[in-house]
Amino acid sequence: MPRGEGKFLIKQRAFLKLYMIRFVEEHKMYGMQAMDELKATFKPFGYEPNHSEIYRSLHELIDDGILVRHKKIQEGAKYKEIVIYQFADYEKAKLYKKQVKTDLDRSMSLLRKALEDVY
Amino acid sequence: MPRGEGKFLIKQRAFLKLYMIRFVEEHKMYGMQAMDELKATFKPFGYEPNHSEIYRSLHELIDDGILVRHKKIQEGAKYKEIVIYQFADYEKAKLYKKQVKTDLDRSMSLLRKALEDVY
Repeated sequence: MPRGEGKFLIKQRAFLKLYMIRFVEEHKMYGMQAMDELKATFKPFGYEPNHSEIYRSLHELIDDGILVRHKKIQEGAKYKEIVIYQFADYEKAKLYKKQVKTDLDRSMSLLRKALEDVY
Repeated sequence: MPRGEGKFLIKQRAFLKLYMIRFVEEHKMYGMQAMDELKATFKPFGYEPNHSEIYRSLHELIDDGILVRHKKIQEGAKYKEIVIYQFADYEKAKLYKKQVKTDLDRSMSLLRKALEDVY
């Protein structure tokens, strides 16, 4: 759950899980591809998520019953297995997105408050 | 320094240090008063900084040479000492605020990006 009593800003883990869900929605969930895309997306913002943090986000989504992991033979390749992620329960994924949006909005408001109060 | 390679959002410590500087600017730096005001300010945002986190922020500002701690006898009270905080170096305080603003703006942009990308 993304909410917590007394919490400061949204946690990195929830933020990354959100992007993982988005990638699967866009049928882009081919492991390394997601990594590279995430790094490129956040680079202009000075944020570089590390691999272990990204993998932990994926594993949490699997443990939560939101995603499922499949292996398949890569097209055109000889016996080369690749790992893909698909939804185990898309309703759960949508619910998670909704919960995290509350936390994103709350975090934005907290930062905006500081900008107004201090500057 | 508020910036760091690969960092996610602004750290709680920098955020609190900013508010401590603001309190001193507003001549409100009477220890417990600041605590209560901070808690009341952030309560509508679901954030409740704990006392040790607030004290650590104050101590870091002293270690950084930005604030200085004084003891004084409370007006009207008999031998009752209170602790107040004043600027040791106001130019340093202003520089710190400037640096943290960059980090606040960056954090806002990162959250805004997620709201645009995912929803």
